[in-house]
Amino acid sequence: MRGVSVVGVGMIPFGKYPAKSLADLGWPAVKAALGDAGIAPRKVQAAFCGTALGGMMAGQRILGRIGLTGIPIVNVENACSSGSTALRQGIMAIRSGEYDVVLVVGVEKLTKFGGGTLPLEEEDWEVSQGLVMPALYAMRAQRYMHDFGLTARQLAQIPVKNRANGALNPDAQMRTPVTVDQVLAARPVADPFTLLQCCPTGDGAAAIVLCATSRAAEIRADLVHVRASELTSGRYVGGYRDMTTPEITVRGAAEAYEQAGLGPQDIRVAEVHDAFSIAELLYYEAFGFCRRGEAGAFLESGATAIDGTIAVNPSGGLLAKGHPLGATGAAQVVEIVRQLRGEAGPRQVAGAKVGLSHATGGGISGFDHGACSIHIFAT
Amino acid sequence: MRGVSVVGVGMIPFGKYPAKSLADLGWPAVKAALGDAGIAPRKVQAAFCGTALGGMMAGQRILGRIGLTGIPIVNVENACSSGSTALRQGIMAIRSGEYDVVLVVGVEKLTKFGGGTLPLEEEDWEVSQGLVMPALYAMRAQRYMHDFGLTARQLAQIPVKNRANGALNPDAQMRTPVTVDQVLAARPVADPFTLLQCCPTGDGAAAIVLCATSRAAEIRADLVHVRASELTSGRYVGGYRDMTTPEITVRGAAEAYEQAGLGPQDIRVAEVHDAFSIAELLYYEAFGFCRRGEAGAFLESGATAIDGTIAVNPSGGLLAKGHPLGATGAAQVVEIVRQLRGEAGPRQVAGAKVGLSHATGGGISGFDHGACSIHIFAT
Repeated sequence: MRGVSVVGVGMIPFGKYPAKSLADLGWPAVKAALGDAGIAPRKVQAAFCGTALGGMMAGQRILGRIGLTGIPIVNVENACSSGSTALRQGIMAIRSGEYDVVLVVGVEKLTKFGGGTLPLEEEDWEVSQGLVMPALYAMRAQRYMHDFGLTARQLAQIPVKNRANGALNPDAQMRTPVTVDQVLAARPVADPFTLLQCCPTGDGAAAIVLCATSRAAEIRADLVHVRASELTSGRYVGGYRDMTTPEITVRGAAEAYEQAGLGPQDIRVAEVHDAFSIAELLYYEAFGFCRRGEAGAFLESGATAIDGTIAVNPSGGLLAKGHPLGATGAAQVVEIVRQLRGEAGPRQVAGAKVGLSHATGGGISGFDHGACSIHIFAT
Repeated sequence: MRGVSVVGVGMIPFGKYPAKSLADLGWPAVKAALGDAGIAPRKVQAAFCGTALGGMMAGQRILGRIGLTGIPIVNVENACSSGSTALRQGIMAIRSGEYDVVLVVGVEKLTKFGGGTLPLEEEDWEVSQGLVMPALYAMRAQRYMHDFGLTARQLAQIPVKNRANGALNPDAQMRTPVTVDQVLAARPVADPFTLLQCCPTGDGAAAIVLCATSRAAEIRADLVHVRASELTSGRYVGGYRDMTTPEITVRGAAEAYEQAGLGPQDIRVAEVHDAFSIAELLYYEAFGFCRRGEAGAFLESGATAIDGTIAVNPSGGLLAKGHPLGATGAAQVVEIVRQLRGEAGPRQVAGAKVGLSHATGGGISGFDHGACSIHIFAT
């Protein structure tokens, strides 16, 4: 298969922009990515736009703003994995041999829905039973605490770490550091979660310019290469008998490592889907960063801090950078690429040469209906 | 690039199914396509689901019903071209070399919205000015009548032809033939359109099984091959100065013919996007089936009837078969494949060896924001 490299990335600071349209959010991210690549819009041969709730023709509305028309534009939806699924479609388009330069954009405007719970399908029986996302994850957290002795104070250290990282990231929605005591004293949402253990809702956009590796040196010298592009479907919140194993991510991780010919020991920086505090801990184990049941101790050891052995969510993650669904997967790649290029400033992970991004979502109308997308990049 | 062939097709009869969920609509179409191919669900390596307004995770909800999980599932949106864009993504997935067997499903449940005008974006300024789709197309019809002398009676012959074809298609939503007088006497919608000149709203699903040509003979003998898979963006309803030239289809047709190494004289059967009566006439010209301004005479000559030189919309088209947005592009391919295999029964186009499908839509938030997807198939 043809090699694919990242030649440009850009995003807007995540936040709440109720007065802006989806196109208002998206085009500056696209412009930033094209500017980072140093190429004109007319060089783009195809575009893929990830959005979960952006409505029809999101990509066309965004790209129309910079006159980018006349090319194939495909809108892609996969719940919280929409942006990373769009990335995978862009990679596949280059692998197919049809295109050399492809644009990927992820975008979402959640303030359109007035905040709070997202609009879900009538036929989604979990939601009709009150099993909205915070409740689902809270049950998993309770189970994990019961099974492995994780304490509430340990769990609260996830938002402490990610908010500290977010304070170093000008693109993060939440830029104020918090303490364990502040996390525990915040407004309760679903026990054991307080508000600070749930990702905020907000708006955002991020974009990526991809190029066939064989042509990428014409665009820039400091290339970041795609080593694995994985997408799968399955159980989003674990099996019915083991709700603390994220089956879809465990399987996806194995497939991604196999594609890349790499293992967890090779990963120096990772952006994982920390929609709730417990999620990041479950993913430490799913990716093999630590052993089953040891995620709390692994976190407390400092291994996943920016100066640890595997920096996890140096951008602030979903908890601090924010989680505008379709934008999230693309923004994770923006962070990984900046880290691998050594452009991450005060949150730079020293010596990062291999990075991983992970976006997973769904669970709509049945626990089985999830998506998980994992990408591995290397210089 | 790797060759791609169609090895299975299936659909449900289009109609109004208010009591059914999106998954209820989708899975029987998938099952029919897999049955037509004679393969088990586990042979499918990746799936692409086209839907415009189906909500999050449509593909996962549908495929979960037949236990098809653990594979990459991508949901694709491109307004009225959603199903054909999903098809193109499926083709690209095989061309990339990653998969040999791919499933494509298109689905929509428009009865969810109570019928009538579709839910469109707030930021869509045409709609806020009253320029809903029937109004936009009515203006184009008026202009065409003014410029080329097309009469109201000529225009009314499009639904007469397509309803006659639909009467021969058990999967069509509208199966009653109509006369020119009935068309002209029907309830007015937007002058010159009466109700019978506008496609009905409804629900539907259609599915396609694709296989790498190099492996397809293992599945079946009577293969239909993809000769062109085209997607582009641009002006959906013509330029501001020439509203009767569908720019995006003219350009897309040229690109599709070039890919296939074929021209309009080679096409024996075509399913084109006749959302309104005038549209089919404009597409005769856009595809080069007849010369500019001569579409009315071409229709009256009988050239586009089932026994004509280029049978157009033998399935009944959008006007009779129906137009559940995401399902439309996939259902067009179901018809073309059945025609090329000689399985179309009373509406069989004699000697059909090359066929074309065409789905175009959009125009949301600016006339520029359209999509057009064209596929050419041959035995």
